[in-house]
Amino acid sequence: MPAPVPPIPTLTVEGDEISIIDQTLLPGEERRLVVATVEQMWEAIRSLRIRGAPAIGIAAAFGMDIAARASIATDRDGFLADLAQAKANLESSRPTAVNLFWALDRVYNRVTDDPPNDVEQLRRIVRAEAVAILDEDLVAGRAIGEHGARLLNNGMVLTHCNAGGLATSGYGTALAPIYVAHEQGKRLQVFADETRPLLQGARLTAWELARAGVPVTVIADNMAATVLSRQPVQAVIVGADRVAANGDFANKIGTFGLAIMAKELGIPFFVAFPLSTVDPSLASGADIPIEERAPDELTTFNGRQIVPDAGRVFNPAFDVTPHRYVTAFITERGVVYPPFDFRVEVAPEPALL
Amino acid sequence: MPAPVPPIPTLTVEGDEISIIDQTLLPGEERRLVVATVEQMWEAIRSLRIRGAPAIGIAAAFGMDIAARASIATDRDGFLADLAQAKANLESSRPTAVNLFWALDRVYNRVTDDPPNDVEQLRRIVRAEAVAILDEDLVAGRAIGEHGARLLNNGMVLTHCNAGGLATSGYGTALAPIYVAHEQGKRLQVFADETRPLLQGARLTAWELARAGVPVTVIADNMAATVLSRQPVQAVIVGADRVAANGDFANKIGTFGLAIMAKELGIPFFVAFPLSTVDPSLASGADIPIEERAPDELTTFNGRQIVPDAGRVFNPAFDVTPHRYVTAFITERGVVYPPFDFRVEVAPEPALL
Repeated sequence: MPAPVPPIPTLTVEGDEISIIDQTLLPGEERRLVVATVEQMWEAIRSLRIRGAPAIGIAAAFGMDIAARASIATDRDGFLADLAQAKANLESSRPTAVNLFWALDRVYNRVTDDPPNDVEQLRRIVRAEAVAILDEDLVAGRAIGEHGARLLNNGMVLTHCNAGGLATSGYGTALAPIYVAHEQGKRLQVFADETRPLLQGARLTAWELARAGVPVTVIADNMAATVLSRQPVQAVIVGADRVAANGDFANKIGTFGLAIMAKELGIPFFVAFPLSTVDPSLASGADIPIEERAPDELTTFNGRQIVPDAGRVFNPAFDVTPHRYVTAFITERGVVYPPFDFRVEVAPEPALL
Repeated sequence: MPAPVPPIPTLTVEGDEISIIDQTLLPGEERRLVVATVEQMWEAIRSLRIRGAPAIGIAAAFGMDIAARASIATDRDGFLADLAQAKANLESSRPTAVNLFWALDRVYNRVTDDPPNDVEQLRRIVRAEAVAILDEDLVAGRAIGEHGARLLNNGMVLTHCNAGGLATSGYGTALAPIYVAHEQGKRLQVFADETRPLLQGARLTAWELARAGVPVTVIADNMAATVLSRQPVQAVIVGADRVAANGDFANKIGTFGLAIMAKELGIPFFVAFPLSTVDPSLASGADIPIEERAPDELTTFNGRQIVPDAGRVFNPAFDVTPHRYVTAFITERGVVYPPFDFRVEVAPEPALL
């Protein structure tokens, strides 16, 4: 049996030092970046030094911890005002992943709900909540892996973007079932879409699967139909950045096209995420805000101009896949099949399994 | 009305000087490259300095002209041996586009079928046949444009890779209807897939549409489903590198996925090509050879490593789309609808219109 796959230290906490792997430098360089201010955390999220819906939530929670420690307020009201400002700042970093807002709300509400007036005590509450979000995500990732691994046999899997350890606290969402199946001795081969424009599949998914000893083959996004039609691919597995109550979900741009191909070619299509990714306030995917990023992500690469000056570009970072394309959702509470109402079945007493 | 769109001088002949636009340098630099030997023409085709199925055929034909002029044979047999060697050499440059083999066969057969023994006269026959192939492609491109323009109204079109003037003698295949519709005063807006790994859509299609004054917006390949589902796209138009007798066709990798999305989302899907792209010897697309290109097209970009050393890559340059995904074929003889047998209806007495 292969050795257990160690979780990736996407964000680590040592005393008061918060550090992240700077994902923009991978795979060429594995460098840790100390994040010491709220502004630095905003920039790290905005610039995708840390990315992936669960990891963004964790990073934002520790942004609140940094703000709590930086606050010079001496009373509860001043402290809450400082936290509220940090929260508003961090909320503006990226619009699509709901985990960002979920984690910020969770930390902030934990503080406002709590009685103490002592600022030092409030700081400890913020830190404890951030740590809880990190720890729970690690447990959730492992559970997603255990549930999802039951869906996988020896053979080929295709994934898109990076929904792995780097996108979470360490195990991942879409990659967690692959890691657990690999630990169980199943022989998997993963096709990783390179995922333009920022190549998270080529750079990050290939890096972390290779680190775990899982064979990985990178393809351009436009090669997926060839792979799905000519290779015995058992499943497509992707993550999610925001899931509406009906199961429609936003994920990295290209997911919707992949879902259409999987349906047409008869390949099961799985979506893996912790329940913190569900936004039960949205009835369907139509209301999920989609981030458009800067044109230069498409017009230049590594300093070379790709698109002529006269050409415009359109650069949405996410797309929305209707739930009817989903074979099953893989969550930390189990595998669930659509049609599915996440409002009813997740809250208040979840019984997914 | 906008001015007529001038054909692009993809390959030009001035006396004995054959020159091409070096497409690997676009859009940054528009430089003509003189091609003086068969080896240089082989390299130009192999390295995609000239690419696109019809343009490859034209380039190969002029490769034969270069060989004919370079031959020091003094009799018919020696001359034919030199031509046969050049033909075999050029045939090894790229495997998928049938126009390459078609043009080489046409030039060679024209010489072997012809009675003269005088080498100088045979050289003139080779040149005349190469010029005929070039001229006929220009006429075919214009005809494809005229026929295809009738399918287009004001509005949006999506295309993949570059099937424009640069891929042909000057007007293109998929882009020809867009150019003619533009000349007719129709207001078109084109979405161009960037087309990984070599970005012919971003670099070449955007360059030549902008040159003609047609508004163009570049997207990553994985954004097509978003554009097709959220924008009022009237049609997808692509070219072809080899068309089997039943209408299955090979084209740039990504075409099959796009065809699946167009079908699922209810968008007409048109395939434009001159009839020299049909290979009636193939009953279906299953027998079309698919070129796999070097891994470094995916593993590095402009000197930067994208895929970690431990990651493998798969880099097919083409895919095969079954004819059932095609709304209509646009050829120089007219618009035709599947199911279609190119063996019966093209030869010997074509009556497509």
